[in-house]
Amino acid sequence: MLSFDEIEHRVSQWMGKKRFKHTLGVVESATQLAKLYNVDVEKARLAALLHDCAKEMPLKDMQALVEASKYEADDELLANGNLLHGLAGMIRAEKEFSITDLEVLEAIRVHTTGKVHMSKLDKVIFLADYIEPNRDFPGVDELRRLAEQDLDKAVLLGFDNTINHLIKQHLSIYPLTILGRNDVLQSCK
Amino acid sequence: MLSFDEIEHRVSQWMGKKRFKHTLGVVESATQLAKLYNVDVEKARLAALLHDCAKEMPLKDMQALVEASKYEADDELLANGNLLHGLAGMIRAEKEFSITDLEVLEAIRVHTTGKVHMSKLDKVIFLADYIEPNRDFPGVDELRRLAEQDLDKAVLLGFDNTINHLIKQHLSIYPLTILGRNDVLQSCK
Repeated sequence: MLSFDEIEHRVSQWMGKKRFKHTLGVVESATQLAKLYNVDVEKARLAALLHDCAKEMPLKDMQALVEASKYEADDELLANGNLLHGLAGMIRAEKEFSITDLEVLEAIRVHTTGKVHMSKLDKVIFLADYIEPNRDFPGVDELRRLAEQDLDKAVLLGFDNTINHLIKQHLSIYPLTILGRNDVLQSCK
Repeated sequence: MLSFDEIEHRVSQWMGKKRFKHTLGVVESATQLAKLYNVDVEKARLAALLHDCAKEMPLKDMQALVEASKYEADDELLANGNLLHGLAGMIRAEKEFSITDLEVLEAIRVHTTGKVHMSKLDKVIFLADYIEPNRDFPGVDELRRLAEQDLDKAVLLGFDNTINHLIKQHLSIYPLTILGRNDVLQSCK
């Protein structure tokens, strides 16, 4: 297997400067969150480094990657690169870097959509993607504070921000995201 | 079959004064919307009159009504009277008043949750429940204006208000409501 630095170099070639900077920010935040919540730091760093590795592929290429794999995607996921890049990124990471750690692969897959029964690693990557230092949106500081206090409550706020954003933009809400959001809401009670 | 007035009298005995006033408000708004959008006015009046006929039953009684019927409900619906009263109301309307009109029954069933492929009658009742004259919440006037202009856009705004309310209140979001919301969003495009 390639070293972290070698993977980092390859990943940097698959994306523009801005997204690579974001990726390094996610690595940084994921590292902090992993330490805070007792998650394997090496797994968190690797999943963070790879989370957006397919994000700049054309949608057609993402679809081809999924269709040539053993994994399946529903029509809604297949039609939307914003949703599909998690699964496509997981497949790319598995294929290009022979990554076999299922926890790392899963965290890449669900980092945007969420799912029911997210692991702590899934939550760390989901959240790091939101709060990494380059992020700047209304409410990001509240989310950063909450992320230091309560992992589940911060993930819930992340989901709720996403849903509010989709509503404001008149965009479709992915139903599995709602299941993930309701599941973490239960964990907060 | 009983007359509208006879059913109204029975329904008034199943709820407190405030809810009965709301019910008559829904009949009024549903009548207006039905005329505006070319929906059968008698069906709209009947569905509006009966939409909350089970709302004040104890949850246990709603559950018993559903379980003794030929209809099925998922666990989330069964556990929550705010969701279940639509189905329970439909069953009560069918049983107590021998109502057999499937369009009327369906509009009662889905008036709170919504669903994919709502009929115009479903939408009229869903919306009348929101905008009837006694309703007073931030944004109700915008919803009333939109309801006069575009049925689908108003239903979408109704769904989005509901989702925002559930998020603010830290409550679970019923996944089928999201499917209904996404479906009507497509109709708006």
